[in-house]
Amino acid sequence: MQLGVIGLGSMGGGMARSAARAGLKVRGYDLRPTSLEGVAGASSPADAAAGADILLVMVVNAKQLEDALFGQDGAMTTLPPGAVVVSSATIPTADAERIGARVEESGHHYLDAPVSGGSARAGTGELTFMASGSPEAFAKAEPMLEACAAKVFRLGPKIGTGSTVKTVHQLLAGVHIAAAAEAMALGVRAGADAKELFEVISNAAGRSWMFENRVPHMLERDFTPHSAVEIFVKDLGLVLDTGRTLRFPLPIAASAHQQFLAAAAAGLGGEDDSAVVKVYEKLAGIEVKGS
Amino acid sequence: MQLGVIGLGSMGGGMARSAARAGLKVRGYDLRPTSLEGVAGASSPADAAAGADILLVMVVNAKQLEDALFGQDGAMTTLPPGAVVVSSATIPTADAERIGARVEESGHHYLDAPVSGGSARAGTGELTFMASGSPEAFAKAEPMLEACAAKVFRLGPKIGTGSTVKTVHQLLAGVHIAAAAEAMALGVRAGADAKELFEVISNAAGRSWMFENRVPHMLERDFTPHSAVEIFVKDLGLVLDTGRTLRFPLPIAASAHQQFLAAAAAGLGGEDDSAVVKVYEKLAGIEVKGS
Repeated sequence: MQLGVIGLGSMGGGMARSAARAGLKVRGYDLRPTSLEGVAGASSPADAAAGADILLVMVVNAKQLEDALFGQDGAMTTLPPGAVVVSSATIPTADAERIGARVEESGHHYLDAPVSGGSARAGTGELTFMASGSPEAFAKAEPMLEACAAKVFRLGPKIGTGSTVKTVHQLLAGVHIAAAAEAMALGVRAGADAKELFEVISNAAGRSWMFENRVPHMLERDFTPHSAVEIFVKDLGLVLDTGRTLRFPLPIAASAHQQFLAAAAAGLGGEDDSAVVKVYEKLAGIEVKGS
Repeated sequence: MQLGVIGLGSMGGGMARSAARAGLKVRGYDLRPTSLEGVAGASSPADAAAGADILLVMVVNAKQLEDALFGQDGAMTTLPPGAVVVSSATIPTADAERIGARVEESGHHYLDAPVSGGSARAGTGELTFMASGSPEAFAKAEPMLEACAAKVFRLGPKIGTGSTVKTVHQLLAGVHIAAAAEAMALGVRAGADAKELFEVISNAAGRSWMFENRVPHMLERDFTPHSAVEIFVKDLGLVLDTGRTLRFPLPIAASAHQQFLAAAAAGLGGEDDSAVVKVYEKLAGIEVKGS
């Protein structure tokens, strides 16, 4: 079973290693030469796709996906007929539909399969997939899913559903992080103890998964980027683009996006997304830290 | 042990019944004549406070609290020296500090003790208290807390801390409900199945307590007001007032508040707070319902 991987960043690289560990024969390509244990290096997308049963593409956006598949030395020139393309990047639903249709027209299968879980879980093969596509696409992709996933949501045959669910997920994730920052900063500005506030909210109806996961980064003043501010500049941007395409207003997501943009404007784009709290802190001269 | 209760609405009435069931002698007063099992009726705040060891005030806002204590036939004219006033309404921190100081100056104790949990838990005596006040205030209030609380967060001696923590909690609760509505509506508009979307998000990092609790109301189209839209018009309003007093910007809370105002404008003020989803539904001609 041969897997081609295009995009060997923190996510794609971890998935490639997880697949190699599970016994798949992996050939990987990245714009930046990257060497990974157990992963053979490819010189182009076409080279990574040659002879592959599954082609995983884990790039930054829809344009990179399209280039990798249909651009110069693109993967579709060599990918064997009947192989499956698995796209795990977060991209707009409309792009997933368009690119998926083009892949299917060329006699290949397509799985619209965004992931959540971050780079640590990519490396341990414990990602959550939100996937849609034909039964054949799922069947073909199964060895890769088994190697990389702790959980696979199988969202039916329609390409685009996986991307829609991921988009909705990112709306909530981004709003919850920014709201956690806003709430904690308000509490500290009003004189509450940040650690006590965290403990109360974590045990009450105001809690969210992101609140419980990200507020400790703020309290410990550890902004090592597990997921960076720029990711939510991009992903909430994609959420808002989706709303614009569909003619659908998203005032709360728009407001949260502005806060991530404010963080990026303050030079925090490369820090952990919880650094959005510094937007409030800088303005008010406070610090949300553990006692 | 005698407990006076002022405010016998869905929250105060439930707390009065819980206290009576636990063996406290309870005298209750409400502007609207209200008769509750096990609770003696009082003719005025002063009448409810006469002879009480503990006076619980569970009214709508700071003005009503101040009137009940210091207005005509106010409770402070009869409350025995050394008794404790427990205020469980959601009020601004600055009001809690001011009213608390005035109660203490009159030779009584004051517990700043907002609650969460809703009317069902008030009736079963399983509320969560976010309370601050002197050790004497806590000690005096203990029999009432034992009767009405599943959990008491003891937030130190400073009157105002309880109200601050509740304010921060309501910011998150309100934003999470409105964000849940926005996200579910976007997903449906984009063609996803609402029930499937709910199941994926509930098992992923985009989840919140409010998402898991309120989205089922949307899916089942059951807008029976467990907590009404008007509560968040009020409580997010209070959050924003707090930000204004402190000179602290709250763009995400402000955006969520506008969505609850939009729901109220559409005549939904008396429906369950999850009816904020109808703002999005009415605009786009969609419905977030279970399949």
